Amino acid sequence: MASHLPPAIEKIIHELTRLPGIGRKGAERLVLHLLRERPENAQSLAGAIADLHNKVRHCQCCGNWAERDRCVICENEQRNPRRICVIEQPSDIWAFEQEEIYDGLYHVLGGVLSPMAGVTADDLAIDALEDRIEADDVEELIIATNPSVDGDATAHYLWQRLGAVGSGELKITRIATGVPIGGHLDYADPGTLRHALEGRRPLN
Amino acid sequence: MASHLPPAIEKIIHELTRLPGIGRKGAERLVLHLLRERPENAQSLAGAIADLHNKVRHCQCCGNWAERDRCVICENEQRNPRRICVIEQPSDIWAFEQEEIYDGLYHVLGGVLSPMAGVTADDLAIDALEDRIEADDVEELIIATNPSVDGDATAHYLWQRLGAVGSGELKITRIATGVPIGGHLDYADPGTLRHALEGRRPLN
Repeated sequence: MASHLPPAIEKIIHELTRLPGIGRKGAERLVLHLLRERPENAQSLAGAIADLHNKVRHCQCCGNWAERDRCVICENEQRNPRRICVIEQPSDIWAFEQEEIYDGLYHVLGGVLSPMAGVTADDLAIDALEDRIEADDVEELIIATNPSVDGDATAHYLWQRLGAVGSGELKITRIATGVPIGGHLDYADPGTLRHALEGRRPLN
Repeated sequence: MASHLPPAIEKIIHELTRLPGIGRKGAERLVLHLLRERPENAQSLAGAIADLHNKVRHCQCCGNWAERDRCVICENEQRNPRRICVIEQPSDIWAFEQEEIYDGLYHVLGGVLSPMAGVTADDLAIDALEDRIEADDVEELIIATNPSVDGDATAHYLWQRLGAVGSGELKITRIATGVPIGGHLDYADPGTLRHALEGRRPLN
């Protein structure tokens, strides 16, 4: 490390380069920016970061990030509580919520079944999901684990285990896999193309 | 902005996207990382940022960033105090100090002469530079303002004004301009090529 910088600057650079996507050069640029700006701006950023873990916890209902017992999505009465989209991580919710494409609630599993990594059903929030299905009389469960080997296996496990929960009329679906919109066929991998073929639908 | 995120998270994202090179997506990724890591890591980063303006000031000698009255470069007795490299901003020092290519001291002007922006010689740390030249019996002044119209004009102004300061034997040089190492001639602009031609040197 360059020894020409004051320790306070080296300290920030050290902390910043531990974050994803920030290298030494990028960290230097951020520090220079903070130094040139008014001190209040740096204080404001520092305060927001210091507050993060104090203020943010997991939603007791779905596992999303929340500041109260329930997250803003679970608290939103406009959303359909009979439909639950099951995802691996809270960040998957962020992906869905970029645009208004889904009006139901979510359920964060906290991962996927993975024999290799030693993750079993007991490590995932499946009991809580069962409770929700019964308590809220859920009609549809959309399994949106990632389209990977473990994600698919987890989807299959959930379908087997949860099909008989509640009224027994629970519809369990899996998000479609295929060629992404705007993608090019010649860049698609064979697995994606196979799924795109298998999932083909008639043009009405 | 997405309303599905807790305010504490939106607050950090807002603060982070004010920094250069960090967009909404990048900020979200940083926050997710902080949330997943141990709270101590976020606290450590917050503390470093909060300390920045409290601890860092300008070196009273050269204008570099420092935590004491003098920066680590001015305090380093291994360096040659008879040679001063004049640059525009403290960040220019960072560029030179990436590798051991220079053993003298620096002097930060704090900008360049700019009639358009209303920056005159009185706005730059030129008086302090004169004092240093006399006090430290400086032998060489390397003008390393940027190779721009204003940077060149400032170099010329310094050469005219400081040539007679001190013992009168002050050597004033300007860093070379030309095609960058590893660059390609067909990407070089005409101005750079003209300087590269004018600055040509005999191959011994």
